Amino acid sequence: MKTRAAVAFEAKKPLEIVEVDLEGPRAGEVLVEIMATGLCHTDKYTLSGADPEGLFPAILGHEGAGIVREVGPGVSSLKPGDHVIPLYTPECRECEYCLNPKTNLCQRIRTTQGRGLMPDGSSRFSYKGQSLLHYMGCSTFSNFTVLPEIALAKVRADAPFDKICYIGCGVTTGVGAVIYTAKVEPGANVVVFGLGGIGLNVIQGARMVGANMIVGVDVNPDREAMGREFGMTHFVNPKEIGGDLVAHIVELTGGGADYSFECVGNVHLMRQALECAHKGWGVSTIIGVASAGAEIATRPFQLVTGRRWQGSAFGGARGRTDVPKIVDWYMDGKIEIDPLITHTLPLARINEGFEMMERGESIRTVVLY
Amino acid sequence: MKTRAAVAFEAKKPLEIVEVDLEGPRAGEVLVEIMATGLCHTDKYTLSGADPEGLFPAILGHEGAGIVREVGPGVSSLKPGDHVIPLYTPECRECEYCLNPKTNLCQRIRTTQGRGLMPDGSSRFSYKGQSLLHYMGCSTFSNFTVLPEIALAKVRADAPFDKICYIGCGVTTGVGAVIYTAKVEPGANVVVFGLGGIGLNVIQGARMVGANMIVGVDVNPDREAMGREFGMTHFVNPKEIGGDLVAHIVELTGGGADYSFECVGNVHLMRQALECAHKGWGVSTIIGVASAGAEIATRPFQLVTGRRWQGSAFGGARGRTDVPKIVDWYMDGKIEIDPLITHTLPLARINEGFEMMERGESIRTVVLY
Repeated sequence: MKTRAAVAFEAKKPLEIVEVDLEGPRAGEVLVEIMATGLCHTDKYTLSGADPEGLFPAILGHEGAGIVREVGPGVSSLKPGDHVIPLYTPECRECEYCLNPKTNLCQRIRTTQGRGLMPDGSSRFSYKGQSLLHYMGCSTFSNFTVLPEIALAKVRADAPFDKICYIGCGVTTGVGAVIYTAKVEPGANVVVFGLGGIGLNVIQGARMVGANMIVGVDVNPDREAMGREFGMTHFVNPKEIGGDLVAHIVELTGGGADYSFECVGNVHLMRQALECAHKGWGVSTIIGVASAGAEIATRPFQLVTGRRWQGSAFGGARGRTDVPKIVDWYMDGKIEIDPLITHTLPLARINEGFEMMERGESIRTVVLY
Repeated sequence: MKTRAAVAFEAKKPLEIVEVDLEGPRAGEVLVEIMATGLCHTDKYTLSGADPEGLFPAILGHEGAGIVREVGPGVSSLKPGDHVIPLYTPECRECEYCLNPKTNLCQRIRTTQGRGLMPDGSSRFSYKGQSLLHYMGCSTFSNFTVLPEIALAKVRADAPFDKICYIGCGVTTGVGAVIYTAKVEPGANVVVFGLGGIGLNVIQGARMVGANMIVGVDVNPDREAMGREFGMTHFVNPKEIGGDLVAHIVELTGGGADYSFECVGNVHLMRQALECAHKGWGVSTIIGVASAGAEIATRPFQLVTGRRWQGSAFGGARGRTDVPKIVDWYMDGKIEIDPLITHTLPLARINEGFEMMERGESIRTVVLY
């Protein structure tokens, strides 16, 4: 079939909106009509050429929502008409990782996904006879796309695509890091570095589970209002405090953060986030993606005196199991998404969305098909 | 009263065996006759002058066992004749730390202890009218010493002092890191960096809780036999394997360590210990004390893909609660101590013990009073 898509033919170039060829689903695969997709920093990072694992030509996009249109042989959990969210972290429920309750990092299709291919080692997309690569197993910048059954979360049909697409990455990454990775308890003090799309979701995750202080840290004073709307109780602008940021946060929190989160991808902030964690029990969770080759460092004394350092990918969520729950939380009003979707665009104007992201004007831009 | 003690009058000098003056116990304090004390690397580190927090003149020693001889006003949990193990990490059961189940780092007397003083800010030791400092709140290199009640674990009377003194530091640090800090489960694969006194105790802790593979890593081939005696199932000598140590361990363990432990104090080994931990769920625990100012580093990707980095002090044990249990485990044959005590000496020859430690001849030397 033919479908419209925004194609990344090469790094550092704008996406091109063209009509591509899409093969139908093979065994274990599902054809999905994408109804909406968010633009995420990770798409931009790959498009910039800085991602050492970026491959081209490819159809980017990994934060979508849509409707199943056709299923391949052997697909049993989905049928045409089902509403779904694509999962760049799948959940096969059979591999060593899925069977270990300590992780969400299903490895079933990791190798082929990393190479931009479907699990059988081939692509479903082509343009003028040239094969195009899939991206993060999703390629939601195509109006229609094919995914493995294990990479689709079935969600309720009354949830709006233009909002729940954000649960495909940003919302789950932030809210999930609080709930599934860090397991923040009621009454805990939480410190969040970076109040972008991820950080605001960490904040509302912390609010949802009953955190006590929720301290937001950002150099951009314009972020304060939105942070407070999502549950932030204290705002710290590193540019405005005199002296050491870590000491300031430790004093503000009465000893340090019970839980801190780095949502920027800056290794210096990762260190500060660890070191402002409370002696004895503070846990610091890295969510941001650092530049290739960058390293975190600290004195081991920080750990020996009881701080723990960990990371979170896709919020520690098991996609098929947890994403439908997060959709419920949104529909029940436990978390907010609407104010975070600051812009919507048709596919033809997708590049404008990345330009707004570059200028820091948007929290999330969503493309509506 | 007068008591014999090995005094560290200054750094880098041998200890001097002299008769010092000891004041009796004040309110909340206890006079203990030390029957035996181990010599630990931490004593040597302080004596070497490399410890930036080392203070002199002081009476070192923190790994002892003895008998209560007198109690000061208000002491309710101990009486003369009780057998005790001094605790450099006390347990007041009242401070914010003791009341938080996530930590064992009681802070009640930390400030004065760090300054070599009793909780009231004074010393009980003097020599020729000059005040001598306490060390780690214990000063077990004195035949008699005074400690706060909260820094003494009451233990059973049938346990031999010359063995259980080792539970005052090394045994608890190693066994406890497995049980209390890392909470290793039956069937887990464990990798231990450094097969000295701490590493061997990590190994036997892992054996006690039913670990599957227990891999020991040491550049000294002489450590293999002792490691196997304590439960090590595989030995890796980094000098003998071709290529990358981390890759070797990941292959040997079928994906990486479920739990790794660094028992040396070398920041490069700490990195290897983290990076050989299993993707998705591996936990690496730092036990060794690094040189002042040394830093650990890794790519944050190691954490984002599911590894956790943490530390352990005094094995995560709450001294008054857990040390008596560890004494029971020794008396019940669940853990071994006897083979680790490779040498005993009278106090007069204590400096020979440090020389043997320097030459790597001893696992543990115990001074018998």
